[in-house]
Amino acid sequence: MSFDPIRLVRPEVRALTAYHAGPPPAAGAVKLDANESPFALGELLRGALADELAQALADVALHRYPDAEGRELRQLLAKDLGVTPDCLLLANGSDEAIQMLVMAVAGPGRAVLAPVPTFVVYELSARMQGLRFIGVPLGAGFLLDEAAIRAALARERPQLVFLAWPNNPTGRLYEEAAVARILQACAGELCDALVVVDEAYVAYSGRSFLPRLASHPNLVVFRTLSKIGLAGIRLGMIVASPALIGEINKVRMPYNVNALSQAAAQVVLRHADVVRRQAALVVAERERLSAALRAMPGIEVTPSDANFFLLRTDRSGDEVARGLLARGILVRDFSTAPYLAGCLRITVGAPSENDLLLSALADILGRGEATS
Amino acid sequence: MSFDPIRLVRPEVRALTAYHAGPPPAAGAVKLDANESPFALGELLRGALADELAQALADVALHRYPDAEGRELRQLLAKDLGVTPDCLLLANGSDEAIQMLVMAVAGPGRAVLAPVPTFVVYELSARMQGLRFIGVPLGAGFLLDEAAIRAALARERPQLVFLAWPNNPTGRLYEEAAVARILQACAGELCDALVVVDEAYVAYSGRSFLPRLASHPNLVVFRTLSKIGLAGIRLGMIVASPALIGEINKVRMPYNVNALSQAAAQVVLRHADVVRRQAALVVAERERLSAALRAMPGIEVTPSDANFFLLRTDRSGDEVARGLLARGILVRDFSTAPYLAGCLRITVGAPSENDLLLSALADILGRGEATS
Repeated sequence: MSFDPIRLVRPEVRALTAYHAGPPPAAGAVKLDANESPFALGELLRGALADELAQALADVALHRYPDAEGRELRQLLAKDLGVTPDCLLLANGSDEAIQMLVMAVAGPGRAVLAPVPTFVVYELSARMQGLRFIGVPLGAGFLLDEAAIRAALARERPQLVFLAWPNNPTGRLYEEAAVARILQACAGELCDALVVVDEAYVAYSGRSFLPRLASHPNLVVFRTLSKIGLAGIRLGMIVASPALIGEINKVRMPYNVNALSQAAAQVVLRHADVVRRQAALVVAERERLSAALRAMPGIEVTPSDANFFLLRTDRSGDEVARGLLARGILVRDFSTAPYLAGCLRITVGAPSENDLLLSALADILGRGEATS
Repeated sequence: MSFDPIRLVRPEVRALTAYHAGPPPAAGAVKLDANESPFALGELLRGALADELAQALADVALHRYPDAEGRELRQLLAKDLGVTPDCLLLANGSDEAIQMLVMAVAGPGRAVLAPVPTFVVYELSARMQGLRFIGVPLGAGFLLDEAAIRAALARERPQLVFLAWPNNPTGRLYEEAAVARILQACAGELCDALVVVDEAYVAYSGRSFLPRLASHPNLVVFRTLSKIGLAGIRLGMIVASPALIGEINKVRMPYNVNALSQAAAQVVLRHADVVRRQAALVVAERERLSAALRAMPGIEVTPSDANFFLLRTDRSGDEVARGLLARGILVRDFSTAPYLAGCLRITVGAPSENDLLLSALADILGRGEATS
């Protein structure tokens, strides 16, 4: 056949491999593979929040289109973030936020830069839309190699820079002053670029660039509800100057956030205290887990300001991941990914899940019981 | 200041105006402006379906990511459509389905073609992503001007063609053989292009190109749940050959359909009979409304195979729309849109809503009571 419709697909897209998320886990699995909150929303408030949420969802008029502007939700979120609603755009998860930013700056010769390893969707989204992706390897301890980044900014002159802060999958929070210097370098000093500071894990780091929005017109901050108990609803946020938000809004599909997710988010935002208490519990567990893991011989743990750890053992990553799976514990195996040889990413779970993890690791590594 | 970050936004995007959906309507408004189903889902089944739906939503583990592949939902949808699940991709509404198709074929010199007037997101999405958009004016009675389309296909050689079938905002179902000839022309005869037959309103037309999927590898069929009672959940579908679906899947963001929407759709699909009965009621109302409108002097009605009418009166569109609004009835005013001078688009409502519409129109047009 002379005409093959597959050939109409752009070569950059054909070269991609579709992102593969595994099948849903078996019932009862200890799920430490996706940086989710270990707490179902009702858990801390017992029945009350769950009932309020169920009622709000049941009340949604599903046969009507959602509010295209997400007005009520944006009001609540803006108040929570301490910005005005015109600084805020809603997205179908951070994935769509990334896609919108890339789309806004796309074009012939345009490029996206990020330190690597980092969240893979930055690169994936750039390639999907035909932009060059420039990955600048992180330095020792997965920290920024500022000299390499400055050289790449000057040489490649990207239009968009992504800094995950803390970074995923390493958990590291780059030095704030270093990130600020990159912001400055991208504001005409070395190149002209928008700099996205992706604060997906801000609930666990407690640090934010939001206060710098007014002074840095090229700063874009990403937030999400995915890591604090609402991964299922897919709600990402873009925060930037009203002028920039106005432009990015032009590539937003009008009804990109569905009515059920808007309703669920509104209920949860009215109980921000619950979210904060859950996050504080996860932070406490992170510190406990960190100490216990460090006390185990044969494990190298990257310091984390997020709700997960990147670790490397003296066994192959694959062997450890399979050993954990055999014990009902799911983790994310990065051991064959670039820059991450032998590494696993393990989400901080609920206390009992973390106990299971520690004894399983001790068991697998053949050193008897955990030494914590 | 020498560096203006707004200048980083691609010129084609800066030239766009953000899609503006109006604010949510006042309580009690008769909403005939958005081609939604007039029926809330529980209405026909009384409590039973609503209870099942509420329970399913309450049971969703919101702190977990949704199934990235939408496996259960795709199984149900595939069965309903009579295709295999590997022919089916889920989207965050048809808007995202359009965006994915455009992204898959984008690139320098690439173009999208559609007869116009039609659904505006085809053109909007092409422009957002920097593709040329070629709008070929429809002929008399808003039917296809095949000669003009063939000439444009040969001259412009687009990579993607959108045919809304029935068309929006006209309601017309193009002759099936004419659509088939365009499919053929785009399979190497005049150009190489994917042809999207957007069947958003299939529940009201009863006609589909799905049976031609196997014989036309460049055919892509769009479906959605938005017009049959689930506009709020945003669920669009792309149906095509497994090979093509595999490629389009590479530009799909992994968690593009949230967990609540997946759960809601599954419940409703298990009650497809309710959906069909609701659609049949709307079709019956469409026929009643059509006859009544045609009997009113001073109104020109375009024949419709969808759940709405495009009509033109002997008054200005703006005057009629404002008159209806003053009587609590929302319709869509297209009177200043290209090719649609003086036109309003009015969704078929519930019987009582249609009665209100008819008497309001009669009142506004100054002819006393409706003459139906």
